[in-house]
Amino acid sequence: MGSGAVLVVEDETMILLDLESALEEAGFEVVGANNAASAIAAFDADPEKFKALVTGIRMGSGETGWELARRCRRANAVLPVVYISGDSATHWAHEGVPNSIMITKPFFMPQIVTAVSTLLNQLPTIDPT
Amino acid sequence: MGSGAVLVVEDETMILLDLESALEEAGFEVVGANNAASAIAAFDADPEKFKALVTGIRMGSGETGWELARRCRRANAVLPVVYISGDSATHWAHEGVPNSIMITKPFFMPQIVTAVSTLLNQLPTIDPT
Amino acid sequence: MGSGAVLVVEDETMILLDLESALEEAGFEVVGANNAASAIAAFDADPEKFKALVTGIRMGSGETGWELARRCRRANAVLPVVYISGDSATHWAHEGVPNSIMITKPFFMPQIVTAVSTLLNQLPTIDPT
Amino acid sequence: MGSGAVLVVEDETMILLDLESALEEAGFEVVGANNAASAIAAFDADPEKFKALVTGIRMGSGETGWELARRCRRANAVLPVVYISGDSATHWAHEGVPNSIMITKPFFMPQIVTAVSTLLNQLPTIDPT
Amino acid sequence: MGSGAVLVVEDETMILLDLESALEEAGFEVVGANNAASAIAAFDADPEKFKALVTGIRMGSGETGWELARRCRRANAVLPVVYISGDSATHWAHEGVPNSIMITKPFFMPQIVTAVSTLLNQLPTIDPT
Amino acid sequence: MGSGAVLVVEDETMILLDLESALEEAGFEVVGANNAASAIAAFDADPEKFKALVTGIRMGSGETGWELARRCRRANAVLPVVYISGDSATHWAHEGVPNSIMITKPFFMPQIVTAVSTLLNQLPTIDPT
Repeated sequence: MGSGAVLVVEDETMILLDLESALEEAGFEVVGANNAASAIAAFDADPEKFKALVTGIRMGSGETGWELARRCRRANAVLPVVYISGDSATHWAHEGVPNSIMITKPFFMPQIVTAVSTLLNQLPTIDPT
Repeated sequence: MGSGAVLVVEDETMILLDLESALEEAGFEVVGANNAASAIAAFDADPEKFKALVTGIRMGSGETGWELARRCRRANAVLPVVYISGDSATHWAHEGVPNSIMITKPFFMPQIVTAVSTLLNQLPTIDPT
Repeated sequence: MGSGAVLVVEDETMILLDLESALEEAGFEVVGANNAASAIAAFDADPEKFKALVTGIRMGSGETGWELARRCRRANAVLPVVYISGDSATHWAHEGVPNSIMITKPFFMPQIVTAVSTLLNQLPTIDPT
Repeated sequence: MGSGAVLVVEDETMILLDLESALEEAGFEVVGANNAASAIAAFDADPEKFKALVTGIRMGSGETGWELARRCRRANAVLPVVYISGDSATHWAHEGVPNSIMITKPFFMPQIVTAVSTLLNQLPTIDPT
Repeated sequence: MGSGAVLVVEDETMILLDLESALEEAGFEVVGANNAASAIAAFDADPEKFKALVTGIRMGSGETGWELARRCRRANAVLPVVYISGDSATHWAHEGVPNSIMITKPFFMPQIVTAVSTLLNQLPTIDPT
Repeated sequence: MGSGAVLVVEDETMILLDLESALEEAGFEVVGANNAASAIAAFDADPEKFKALVTGIRMGSGETGWELARRCRRANAVLPVVYISGDSATHWAHEGVPNSIMITKPFFMPQIVTAVSTLLNQLPTIDPT
């Protein structure tokens, strides 16, 4: 069952910790980051490690979650993407990527688990070679 | 994640308790009611509090789950609705509301968690103002 | 059925004419544009007139179809968007907007008719006021 | 392909004629009715003949399209249902039946053809006996 | 739009001709075959030419449509597949391939056009290289 | 909620145990089998007991998971089917049954829970009699 992790990016520390523990308790392996720069560093160090991205939108001074998701999709066109936001949710229609899920705050933890699982289960199974 | 609850309505006490504890353990906040009248009272007291409805169909002498769901959808047109029933499941095709899920008894608890989560994750994100 | 039109943007004249006549024959009203600038001018003059956008990606020196779609979605968050492209199709995963359809060249005309119709039929029906 | 028809119910004569000719030109067989009472008479005379229902909502003094659809679904639980309406579209969330499509006026004719075809193509294929 | 065709396989000549003319009138290019052997010959001669398969099930003494679809999917894992049948429709649940559409006879021609178009519009857009 | 179980078939003992405990912890009742022959024996002894099938693909010398799923679908046309595999995932396009889910190894446990729950929640509710 081994390799692979969900990259979780959120600048509010309490929410990040809640997300990490909920996803881990459900059975995911998680790598957390509290800003876009460290998320990018983790992703670029080993892009194939990451099986899904869960990200907030406005996270301090760096890239937004919209930009982060586009960057990761450039490296992995089928990466499952889940956005979490309060006020920015209405921007999803023009800032989100296709086949992503927008979860509006406040939310319930099982929404995140179901969102990531559902997107992983819809991945194409065609041979990449 | 703070505010909001799932309204769970079921007249068989054992099933209601099972539903409440399963949903809470998964991470939802729950308000339970064992008949339609008390469900309506709770809903009308604070309609915006309720993020989803999980309801049985025939619950004693009051409104059916079909009527309850229509009533709640009149107040909140995008409310996620999950029906649970045994013999009444075949009536869903003419009594249910659009974009609802019918779960037939006997069922497994993760079906309820997944149903509520999936419907919440499909909510439109357009600006209500 | 009166008002409203599909905005079709494509810089290859033959394809634009084919798209226009196929969509009109199927029953759509169409406004055609052969570059992004004139599409934007038409859209900005009467945003509510446009019920859907069908656009190529690379269209001369102006905005790309990716940028055009984001711009239109900012004005109308539920606008159906259909992209048509050959080599740019693989960029849809990071450049496309949510709930859009990517049609790869070469294509068959009924794909366009079905794509626009399907997206129109999925529009949310909640009251905007 | 022989037997079967789409039941189209609409009290505005011009729209009814447009719907009939568009559906017939696309390849459907159509039975039209300009009020609920004659629709019910046609349906009750031969329920198995009807493969889909396309209906307006408010049609004079008789049953609404909401009531008509529920009635037909009681006889045929998998009947495809397409509603057409202007002001009543926002009531679909509490008045519509599951797995139906709500098309808001003004609309384009290919939306109707695609809606009926899509619902027919999603019918369950399990053996009724 | 140039290259590519839908492979239509049906042993009843009248139905085959109807399918061919309906698909061509809608804008598809079609290659017809009235038995599995000639369908296989056409497909094997130029597998990349075929963008979709529409097939009956029992077609004389050769391969069934179930076998034909599996064979074509082995060569092209994302090939859209539409089955047409009367009595064999209930076998789709164990004989059909994933992401295919089963259309039960009698049917209306726009169902076929919509089925092929919808499956083509859902093709993954990831880079095959 | 009483009766019924998920049939889980996997020849790697560690993975089978992990699947069983994850599904049971989530709230499913599970019957495990480490090869196709014992899965078939369990299924044939009481077909109505089994509400879903989770199966590996290559499991020693007996039937493959592809064959097992077809066999079970012959007995129960609406049985939810989830395949788990590493190298065989690319064969799903021609070996899988309709409305099944293919999960590629390595995977996360909540994917299995969500896959089984989602398929159960999509079952048709029409009266079998």
